[in-house]
Amino acid sequence: MSVRELIQKQGSLVVGGAYNAISASMVERAGFDAVWLSSFGVSIAERALPDANLITLSEMLHVARNMVAAVNIPIVADCENGYGDINNTIHTVREFERAGISAVCIDDNQYPKRCSLYDHADRELISLPDMVAKIKAGKDVQRSSEFVFIARTEALIAHCDVSECIDRSSAYLEAGADLLVIHSRSWRHLQQVLERWNAPDKLVVIPTMFPEIDLDQLRREGFKMIIYANQAIRASLKAMEEVLTKLRVTGRSADVESDILTLSQINELVGFEDVRQNGHAREAALIKS
Amino acid sequence: MSVRELIQKQGSLVVGGAYNAISASMVERAGFDAVWLSSFGVSIAERALPDANLITLSEMLHVARNMVAAVNIPIVADCENGYGDINNTIHTVREFERAGISAVCIDDNQYPKRCSLYDHADRELISLPDMVAKIKAGKDVQRSSEFVFIARTEALIAHCDVSECIDRSSAYLEAGADLLVIHSRSWRHLQQVLERWNAPDKLVVIPTMFPEIDLDQLRREGFKMIIYANQAIRASLKAMEEVLTKLRVTGRSADVESDILTLSQINELVGFEDVRQNGHAREAALIKS
Amino acid sequence: MSVRELIQKQGSLVVGGAYNAISASMVERAGFDAVWLSSFGVSIAERALPDANLITLSEMLHVARNMVAAVNIPIVADCENGYGDINNTIHTVREFERAGISAVCIDDNQYPKRCSLYDHADRELISLPDMVAKIKAGKDVQRSSEFVFIARTEALIAHCDVSECIDRSSAYLEAGADLLVIHSRSWRHLQQVLERWNAPDKLVVIPTMFPEIDLDQLRREGFKMIIYANQAIRASLKAMEEVLTKLRVTGRSADVESDILTLSQINELVGFEDVRQNGHAREAALIKS
Amino acid sequence: MSVRELIQKQGSLVVGGAYNAISASMVERAGFDAVWLSSFGVSIAERALPDANLITLSEMLHVARNMVAAVNIPIVADCENGYGDINNTIHTVREFERAGISAVCIDDNQYPKRCSLYDHADRELISLPDMVAKIKAGKDVQRSSEFVFIARTEALIAHCDVSECIDRSSAYLEAGADLLVIHSRSWRHLQQVLERWNAPDKLVVIPTMFPEIDLDQLRREGFKMIIYANQAIRASLKAMEEVLTKLRVTGRSADVESDILTLSQINELVGFEDVRQNGHAREAALIKS
Repeated sequence: MSVRELIQKQGSLVVGGAYNAISASMVERAGFDAVWLSSFGVSIAERALPDANLITLSEMLHVARNMVAAVNIPIVADCENGYGDINNTIHTVREFERAGISAVCIDDNQYPKRCSLYDHADRELISLPDMVAKIKAGKDVQRSSEFVFIARTEALIAHCDVSECIDRSSAYLEAGADLLVIHSRSWRHLQQVLERWNAPDKLVVIPTMFPEIDLDQLRREGFKMIIYANQAIRASLKAMEEVLTKLRVTGRSADVESDILTLSQINELVGFEDVRQNGHAREAALIKS
Repeated sequence: MSVRELIQKQGSLVVGGAYNAISASMVERAGFDAVWLSSFGVSIAERALPDANLITLSEMLHVARNMVAAVNIPIVADCENGYGDINNTIHTVREFERAGISAVCIDDNQYPKRCSLYDHADRELISLPDMVAKIKAGKDVQRSSEFVFIARTEALIAHCDVSECIDRSSAYLEAGADLLVIHSRSWRHLQQVLERWNAPDKLVVIPTMFPEIDLDQLRREGFKMIIYANQAIRASLKAMEEVLTKLRVTGRSADVESDILTLSQINELVGFEDVRQNGHAREAALIKS
Repeated sequence: MSVRELIQKQGSLVVGGAYNAISASMVERAGFDAVWLSSFGVSIAERALPDANLITLSEMLHVARNMVAAVNIPIVADCENGYGDINNTIHTVREFERAGISAVCIDDNQYPKRCSLYDHADRELISLPDMVAKIKAGKDVQRSSEFVFIARTEALIAHCDVSECIDRSSAYLEAGADLLVIHSRSWRHLQQVLERWNAPDKLVVIPTMFPEIDLDQLRREGFKMIIYANQAIRASLKAMEEVLTKLRVTGRSADVESDILTLSQINELVGFEDVRQNGHAREAALIKS
Repeated sequence: MSVRELIQKQGSLVVGGAYNAISASMVERAGFDAVWLSSFGVSIAERALPDANLITLSEMLHVARNMVAAVNIPIVADCENGYGDINNTIHTVREFERAGISAVCIDDNQYPKRCSLYDHADRELISLPDMVAKIKAGKDVQRSSEFVFIARTEALIAHCDVSECIDRSSAYLEAGADLLVIHSRSWRHLQQVLERWNAPDKLVVIPTMFPEIDLDQLRREGFKMIIYANQAIRASLKAMEEVLTKLRVTGRSADVESDILTLSQINELVGFEDVRQNGHAREAALIKS
């Protein structure tokens, strides 16, 4: 089922961030409605690099395809700033839709998103008309009407005032964006916007920086999509750090057995039995021959 | 430093299994001497597929290169059966050495390693002369004398008797293998071989199936390399399962904060500060211009 | 349009072999009905390696996806022996169908297809039941009923007698193969089979080794698909050899101008104008802002 | 031998443009000193896309690695604008050097290089200090002193005047660039610069747009490197167009035999005999066993 269908059916989606096939699969098993293919996650996991437009569209697509092959729930791809200008954005939409991705999220950061790295400096956004042109072009080249284009404004991150944030938000939806993220490091800032803007029923939230706000509250606020973008990779890193440190000291795997899945749990996770059965079928064929 | 240099210097190596750049990086930070690039790990993590020669040499190389870029310790690549016959083995050695890998491990399983999936059936190995030919060919095409070829016999896994296991082990080392794994699901079986064979000082052990044997004991037995092949990924999966399940219920990230790394811990892990500094340098250049 | 639809509509297809996106695009422009993604071509072009199961499923898929993005006609992928056993074949079908490929061709060579390299030796095929199991499994896991599985027997190449060739051919079609290649180095051998077998209307021919037989004759014989597998790459190599040799001597590009496309012809070929227009659109947006 | 060693030894290099492993191999066989990995060529060949920063660093690296595996002469990679800002440039240098590339060429176009597509408009360059910062950073992170950084100014393409072109050229060399391309669509413009600038002995020329100037003249002008960037792919496309069109009409391969390499010529080109010999060796081993 596509993201669009799920929203129509359920009203809202709870989405879990992943960075490779198995984390996407675990997001699915934990009962999330969709997977968020996180550029942060892929930068960290696949390359051990900071999330600063260093990884390429190709590296994201590589993971996207592996996820598409591994899960049955739809995938929402974090495509950053569309990897460049309007032509890059068109190319991005085509590549991700062709790869079987259900929705892309493209933001109004400059490429490369350099100032995202400065806490105190003004981040530079592309101009409102440039972002509008990207959104229109992206919607224009989608092949399936099921495909979802999520626009994301970094206006609050870039310390723009509330009215610019609202101007951009309105313009992006008018340009054809199916959904909108008003990205924020603070719940209060986000609320200031929502208090002053009669927002259409198309908002998405990524509550990384306001972790005390729970799902019920986010749903009551009317968000159509709530994305837990990076908890999975952060859990993975914490666990590996602990287990590897322990193991390095004693060198006795038994000491970490309670912190790790068993091999048979993993076999179950990846459908080992199917491969075994196919082997048996072939054995049987051989015996009959 | 290469695997060969480390062994000469230290006597033996403790190696940690990884499956992507960041897990390799965590193996390095935990103090392991080298990284084991695990085909099991890559199958599970990147593809959510069982470890049955479904992933390709290309998919392993992709991860290998990402690891080489991310860590300073040497990497030992699990190259299974060399992905086919003698020509595939030659190709494998060339590809992995060219990618910056320090050592490959190639076993005597048939391709595809089908019977590894049957607990009770006889696994089929390639013939002793075929494996010898692979080892000779592999050593022949290596470019650097630093490169290490680890031969691995699955004779015990395939229920061969101890004497065949010893025959194969001797022949593989004679053929030029630098190190040897006598893979075993049981510590007792492995000991039966070692009691009857005056083994050269070139053995490697992967103690997955005898987790109570600790590092001290393995070192006392004289192993030159002790590989903890898959505990990192198993820890990662366990942690993600728990955190995602919790998060799906309450939707409150604060509930899992103690189970996940903070964003600034992750930034430190991947050298975020370097990228920030380079950005600053450019800002400075702009101001001066 | 899929291969299946085209055959239903046209009766038969003329297919041109390609090895990267631009050669696929030129096959399309020359008026062929479909593209043959050639493992020979990809081995030579992408890796400068002989066609001996050295390139991986991943390397073929990489090209497949680039072709799918570049052309509108369907693509038939040469998937060799399915890259291993029944499990690899299942994986192969899934990967290529997911990539947007319209048909796969899988043969009864052993993996790796070693003996294809010996003119005089007996090539070894997998057993008839093994190949039947592969075909059944491949058909079983296809997602769309449009997907086409072409079985290819190398019986004549392997010096099997006519009756074994017919046995295999019948069995493969009975197992569910949509189309069948009876691969042959000789037109006479192929005719000997066709004279003795009341073949179903499902045959494909690859006339590389009988270049004097023309399209009309092949159509009269009733072939549903005629594949010119490798002429494009062979033309490319001949031309590059000549032009590079000339250029190396005089170093004057004007000397080879009549042997090369102009830059504007190439721009037309790859839709340069679209990218330019999008740029203009953005400029316009900027001016209005 | 590296590009640096060759220049020291020979005084100047003649370099041929290629876009995949086999074209690189043909450049080598034709007697060129090095391969130019062309972003134009890879965009056209691999993706059938215009050369407009649509292909990624990953797609270029993929081809780079395939070339490194296929040839013995050094490879110079066209890395466009370094795929972004100073951090992307650092990443680019690291990735290409690690892949075994001998030299990179990085230009002062903005990313994406949008205005290169407008004949009449002003192309926008990055500022002189920004380019200087990129060059310094790139030299700073190289691992081997053999590695060569070629800076390329597009000042003439962007209709800057001669003095700005000279300012940039001097500054780039002062910043540490090992070699410099003053890119030009016109031999006359290039000469105007050279008449007014007492240029250091570090110039590279790409004579695509002045095809009547021959190698002798370019050498007399003192260029250290003369790059024939795209004639090979242009020859390939012309030949494929002709052969495919002919073949589509008659369907008789014999009609194009004189325009294509024979299969045995291709086998010779890619070392088929080695693979065959290895197979024989294995056969022999089997017989002895």
